[in-house]
Amino acid sequence: MHILVTNDDGVTAPGLAALAQAMRALGRVTVVAPDHNWSASGHVKTMHKPLRVKKAALADGAEALATDGAPSDCVALAFLGVVPDKIDMVVSGINPFANMSHDVTYSGTVMAAMEGAIARVPAVAVSVDGAATAGYETAAWAAARVVSRVAERGLPPYTLLNVNVPRVAVSDVKGFRITRQGLRVYRDALVERADPRGVPYYWIGGEAPTGMPDEGTDFAALADGYVSVTPLRLDLTAYDLLEPLREWTL
Amino acid sequence: MHILVTNDDGVTAPGLAALAQAMRALGRVTVVAPDHNWSASGHVKTMHKPLRVKKAALADGAEALATDGAPSDCVALAFLGVVPDKIDMVVSGINPFANMSHDVTYSGTVMAAMEGAIARVPAVAVSVDGAATAGYETAAWAAARVVSRVAERGLPPYTLLNVNVPRVAVSDVKGFRITRQGLRVYRDALVERADPRGVPYYWIGGEAPTGMPDEGTDFAALADGYVSVTPLRLDLTAYDLLEPLREWTL
Repeated sequence: MHILVTNDDGVTAPGLAALAQAMRALGRVTVVAPDHNWSASGHVKTMHKPLRVKKAALADGAEALATDGAPSDCVALAFLGVVPDKIDMVVSGINPFANMSHDVTYSGTVMAAMEGAIARVPAVAVSVDGAATAGYETAAWAAARVVSRVAERGLPPYTLLNVNVPRVAVSDVKGFRITRQGLRVYRDALVERADPRGVPYYWIGGEAPTGMPDEGTDFAALADGYVSVTPLRLDLTAYDLLEPLREWTL
Repeated sequence: MHILVTNDDGVTAPGLAALAQAMRALGRVTVVAPDHNWSASGHVKTMHKPLRVKKAALADGAEALATDGAPSDCVALAFLGVVPDKIDMVVSGINPFANMSHDVTYSGTVMAAMEGAIARVPAVAVSVDGAATAGYETAAWAAARVVSRVAERGLPPYTLLNVNVPRVAVSDVKGFRITRQGLRVYRDALVERADPRGVPYYWIGGEAPTGMPDEGTDFAALADGYVSVTPLRLDLTAYDLLEPLREWTL
């Protein structure tokens, strides 16, 4: 199995090195990652300018390729030929701070995995709750568990798995839960300031968003000490609205 | 009704002026749009740097606000207070080139509307098939039809409508179809070149993607001369995979 590993925090992020190490136990690993941080960058396809690809080193010194494109560009470039060998799976992470709920479309980590699903290979995004000050050991362990199962079982086309790991030691993990996306509670606030010339500028600030720990959700799994595994699909169609909308007689 | 209008092509794009004109027949309009083109920018939340907001003019001279943030930032800034009055709906477009299928997460136009849905107001994204060389009249007419119905009926929380309009005269439109997302057929190709110093660079090129015109899809509606209206949801959970994954015994 040939696993493409990427992230949205950049090629030198410790979470990327931890993920690549864990994946090497399961197969051959190629890392193609951004040369700088792309957090909250969403799903990007860079077409208006050329992209560079250069050799780089992970935080542990292992070989990698770095690009000046977004996380999803890294995956697209790999499939378009920057990585000449066939890729069997895409794994993205390990992102510090969970990527949960119905706003994962902001997440460079999840959108990099989605680019793998668009390329029709199984894809997994991995994030750890909080700032990962306790390290990436638990998330790397959980990623290996999930990825080895995906390798055995496969995933339907155009789907991916979004894995979020609690910030506890491996021995304290309660288990794995298959979850649905919960609802975010935003706490963004606008900071307005004046620059040295008196011209106003704005900064999107406020506290980090939390979420509703409703039963069955990603938020509830983490709150209860479980690893959350959420299957996502590329098809955003709200099927339950098709019939009601047909009665609108547009 | 107070309608926030935005786009991803920038404040001077003719499609934005056409949309704002059409919306003024339905209510009060405020335009907050990017100061440059953000095509294929995805869902962005700019938190690592401040954003500027300045007065600008649409292509037809009407007043607008322009920001140096992404389309989704424009919507977030508006709701966070840059637009002090209550906003009742977000309408994004008119984008030249359709935004269809399971990769709408790339689309700045659709993600700007999604930001409206996250802010819990009804939201509509509008695009016209092809390069809109025939102008925006048909798309502006279709947008007004859909938005006036949304104003009457509302939309469930965390959903939005993605409207794609054929490039024909209003009198040649066959009608409106409520559709699901189709499947893209990608024709990306990697162009590798050497810069003036002999260093390689890459450009994501190839032909524009097409799509599978399967029955009931957005692609089929446009191919048949209909306006496509696809309801989208923020919840990407693949519900049909929850039970199968629970049998994996992770």
